[in-house]
Amino acid sequence: MIRIAVDAMGGDYAPKEQVLGAMLAIQKIKDIEIILYGDVEKINKLLTNSERISVVNAPFVIPMGEKNPIQAIKAHREDSSMAQALASLRKDEADAVVSSGATQALIAGAHILVRRMKGFKRTAIAPVIPSVSGKPTILLDAGGNLTIKPEYMLQQAYFAKIYAQEILKIENPTVGLINIGTEAGKGRDIDKEVFDLFTETDLFEFYGNVEPKTVLEPECDILISDGFTANIVMKTLEGTAKGMGKMLKKSLTSSFFGKLGALLASKNLKDFKKMMSASEIGGAVIYGLYKPVVKAQGASKSYGFYNGIRQAADICRTGVFDKVQAYIDDHKEESNE
Amino acid sequence: MIRIAVDAMGGDYAPKEQVLGAMLAIQKIKDIEIILYGDVEKINKLLTNSERISVVNAPFVIPMGEKNPIQAIKAHREDSSMAQALASLRKDEADAVVSSGATQALIAGAHILVRRMKGFKRTAIAPVIPSVSGKPTILLDAGGNLTIKPEYMLQQAYFAKIYAQEILKIENPTVGLINIGTEAGKGRDIDKEVFDLFTETDLFEFYGNVEPKTVLEPECDILISDGFTANIVMKTLEGTAKGMGKMLKKSLTSSFFGKLGALLASKNLKDFKKMMSASEIGGAVIYGLYKPVVKAQGASKSYGFYNGIRQAADICRTGVFDKVQAYIDDHKEESNE
Repeated sequence: MIRIAVDAMGGDYAPKEQVLGAMLAIQKIKDIEIILYGDVEKINKLLTNSERISVVNAPFVIPMGEKNPIQAIKAHREDSSMAQALASLRKDEADAVVSSGATQALIAGAHILVRRMKGFKRTAIAPVIPSVSGKPTILLDAGGNLTIKPEYMLQQAYFAKIYAQEILKIENPTVGLINIGTEAGKGRDIDKEVFDLFTETDLFEFYGNVEPKTVLEPECDILISDGFTANIVMKTLEGTAKGMGKMLKKSLTSSFFGKLGALLASKNLKDFKKMMSASEIGGAVIYGLYKPVVKAQGASKSYGFYNGIRQAADICRTGVFDKVQAYIDDHKEESNE
Repeated sequence: MIRIAVDAMGGDYAPKEQVLGAMLAIQKIKDIEIILYGDVEKINKLLTNSERISVVNAPFVIPMGEKNPIQAIKAHREDSSMAQALASLRKDEADAVVSSGATQALIAGAHILVRRMKGFKRTAIAPVIPSVSGKPTILLDAGGNLTIKPEYMLQQAYFAKIYAQEILKIENPTVGLINIGTEAGKGRDIDKEVFDLFTETDLFEFYGNVEPKTVLEPECDILISDGFTANIVMKTLEGTAKGMGKMLKKSLTSSFFGKLGALLASKNLKDFKKMMSASEIGGAVIYGLYKPVVKAQGASKSYGFYNGIRQAADICRTGVFDKVQAYIDDHKEESNE
């Protein structure tokens, strides 16, 4: 059995959608069991089926806007649902964590309570973004390290390759460097250094520089940059999608024929929304930890949260983390510094 | 009369759309005259009305993907339409330039042939992006200086404020710093330094950090970052808009009712496309040159190009450049370094 620790209190609609998502997961995925961390009283009211689900009381919620997430995690190590879920990994009470709580707190908590994979220099957050063709794209590092060394990005890109192969079932995944132009020599010093290092490596196939003009139809499977730039890409994508959705609605509701057309095409418009929606794809994974931590979207509903659990189970089942660890162990001597 | 030098050969549909755009501008704007730089033979075939329009032969086109734009501009100083249009400013044969040619060549050419405004440290490219509310937002620096000092960004932000007031008619425009979080202290060292400098200044109202999650509905009028980051924002916005447009089309054409709905709502969908389109708003302006240079989109059709000309004329008429120059002259002693 794969044991998934669920932070039931983090997220905009917690604990309801988290508990519903967990029950859905249990129903759909037969080789998992779930430990829900949170307010036992609230959870028990929602839990209509406790098959393969246990509950641990940890009612404190680290708020979304928490200014000092490290301190918050440390102060609430014993009573916060997030900290307790994370701590269960080291205690070998669970194999993976799923949380839709505050991202910064989750990263801070993961570093304090889960720790990094041995030899993995910098963790990265890697959401999966949609594309026109339907093929998912991995984006990283969407919020870990604002500045980073090229060698550490090499490790992250390798992790993404293994992840893309094993979980997204992409054959021979290619890595593109996010840049302001496609030619070699474009960008800042760090971009040029990464370009050179990635060109030389035989760890993965390097596609070259990629302009985010093609962010929804890239010719590679993995898009990488430093934690500042990739986070800006992710947030601009999010903002544009949200803003365009509103503009579309505004246009369609501005006239009778628009409304009628929208009504007729309502199923199609829903499909369109679904294409852009993260809940279909699942959460962002933190690469480089000792065990998997999946960050589901803060606004996750039950189905989105279920997808996060499914993703965590897939990661455990395919042994992505072990494969990367094995590679790093084999190459320890080279990467020592 | 305001004299506009037009690079008639740059752009995806040149010279046709440029010549049509120029004739449209002459018809709509009474206080301008236009000098078309380009292939005289080709231009004359398209020019059905030469009222207040003259043509100067400069047939060479600097290609879009030019690897060495500085060299290209220097080598074709005498025969390229772009170089000749730019050179007309220093010779006082024109008051502003409009080009939809290769951006990097235009920036390089502007530095060589137009030069900077006295005391203005780093030029910036500032496109105007659409918003849900319809109010335009200035984005800068969308491709000038990959790394930059905070003091130079202060100058650029001040320029944007004057531009927003005079051209976009925004009262008391506010400036937001593009960042990965809204709280003070977020981002890289440069972002923190800029935050502190902008907080102290009384040159403009500083809104604070802005996450690009709100890029199409920001609560400020001007969004600023370094030339790498703002370019990434612009290209991600472009890519998401383009990709979402394709996804929407894919959804709508996937069924009979979708197609019928889209047909009924076709005017609304066109309005939506227009909302997202740059041709309604005009081109990007290079801030900090001795005289205005407007970069119209490479894919400009006649109406988009006309808007670029209108924008250039507005800039000359309102004296934006003179106002910024006057401020810089007044504060010379402070900004010396």
